[in-house]
Amino acid sequence: MKVISKIQEMQDYVLTMKKQGNSIGLVPTMGYLHEGHLTLAKKARQENDLVVMSIFVNPLQFGPKEDLSTYPRDLDRDLKLAENEKIDVIFHPSVEEMYPNPPAVLMHVGDRTDVLCGKSRPGHFDGVALVVSKLFNIIQPERAYFGRKDAQQVAVIDLIVATYNFPIEVVAVDTVREEDGLAKSSRNVFLSDEERQQAPVLFRSLANAQSLIEEGENNPDSIIKFISEEITEKTNGKIDYVEIYSYPELKEIVELKGTIIIALAVKFPKARLIDNIVITNV
Amino acid sequence: MKVISKIQEMQDYVLTMKKQGNSIGLVPTMGYLHEGHLTLAKKARQENDLVVMSIFVNPLQFGPKEDLSTYPRDLDRDLKLAENEKIDVIFHPSVEEMYPNPPAVLMHVGDRTDVLCGKSRPGHFDGVALVVSKLFNIIQPERAYFGRKDAQQVAVIDLIVATYNFPIEVVAVDTVREEDGLAKSSRNVFLSDEERQQAPVLFRSLANAQSLIEEGENNPDSIIKFISEEITEKTNGKIDYVEIYSYPELKEIVELKGTIIIALAVKFPKARLIDNIVITNV
Repeated sequence: MKVISKIQEMQDYVLTMKKQGNSIGLVPTMGYLHEGHLTLAKKARQENDLVVMSIFVNPLQFGPKEDLSTYPRDLDRDLKLAENEKIDVIFHPSVEEMYPNPPAVLMHVGDRTDVLCGKSRPGHFDGVALVVSKLFNIIQPERAYFGRKDAQQVAVIDLIVATYNFPIEVVAVDTVREEDGLAKSSRNVFLSDEERQQAPVLFRSLANAQSLIEEGENNPDSIIKFISEEITEKTNGKIDYVEIYSYPELKEIVELKGTIIIALAVKFPKARLIDNIVITNV
Repeated sequence: MKVISKIQEMQDYVLTMKKQGNSIGLVPTMGYLHEGHLTLAKKARQENDLVVMSIFVNPLQFGPKEDLSTYPRDLDRDLKLAENEKIDVIFHPSVEEMYPNPPAVLMHVGDRTDVLCGKSRPGHFDGVALVVSKLFNIIQPERAYFGRKDAQQVAVIDLIVATYNFPIEVVAVDTVREEDGLAKSSRNVFLSDEERQQAPVLFRSLANAQSLIEEGENNPDSIIKFISEEITEKTNGKIDYVEIYSYPELKEIVELKGTIIIALAVKFPKARLIDNIVITNV
């Protein structure tokens, strides 16, 4: 497994590999890999000749009050896990390499961002858009792999790819869960034992909401109320949002028809957890 | 010569050509080709296996009071001229093809744009950034050719390429001039006979300014005053700006040292003309 930290070296390498006819899959990560990432890696491994995983904690997508400095990092462990998945190249640039100057040309995502996580994280997706565009140009993949856990991110990246005509297929991969349903996340390590025991309520309430909808519940507000009460009663977490929208447009809906997303974010003292389900209801 | 109007067809075609080992040169234009464009085409023809010329009048880079609807167009003539230059592919998409929806992810160029043409054309370079990024992703050239007549545009495109790590060499090509020095432009056709006779004063004043600097003039304001007086006295045009900056940074300077640009824009009733020279003064 190659580890490359310089943009020029990465571009030269993919250029050589592409000239030899190799297809390239990109798994963009911020490191501290968990099974979610490894599932993306496995899928990329199946579908491409060359798999590049980027590990870069992108400061531009963190707000001033967010957890940039405490975001967990463990490169040695990441490299071992990536090697196990037969990743070909780790692209691990420094912040200075990616942003030698404050970026002078910014992107602004003007749709799909004023709801869910985007609402409480102004500028977050603008930072995502910039770094993902850079990674796309540096690594030039045929396919890029993203987890459905960040469903809004997938919707936004679809929009970036469509708007800018990146010749890239965005592959969305299902959320990987612990046995008790909790979505895997780098931030789960910050839960106390008690919080960790409560945390599966997030997914369980989503799954129960899905059952209610399948049984005929048609009112978004009733579902939101149901989930909110479950979380409030059964965890010490503080609800950031429980919201329902059309997907991937992320527009408000008045009845639960078509493809919809039910998404939530819950704050525990040291970790903000997110989860969602996308349902198609005919 | 192929004429392609669909993005998908263009991407598929360049993909095939790249897989066969062909290098690609892009000449982006808004059509109504003149010798300036053809010089870009000739240079691209020398340096690449496949030359793609895009012809697209990009509405996003025109302000609400600008000349979008009257911008000159003559596709048949353009195709003949391009064929003469042995262009391989004309990419000529419709506005609907490029912008099926109002673009939801915009670029904002936050540097090098608040001076020269950028100052009086808010949003112009944001529109340029978006369309050029799209064209880069659609055509995936190794090299893209731009005229030095739009020196600010070259400076901005350098910034976009650097910020987004496009694997593309920006090739800046010298301004092509009429025998009397007037920079070639699609808008020259809108000059009256009298204005056409006066218009060479623009370049002549720049060339004379260069002589003054070579003879020791060191004060930007003196040079600006000299050029402004020349244009005011010898043409009916109305000066939009005469400005001097460092190049390509486009920062204000207090003495004429290093690489500098002297640039001007002059309004005639039906055509706004621009010109510039870049000088390196040790």
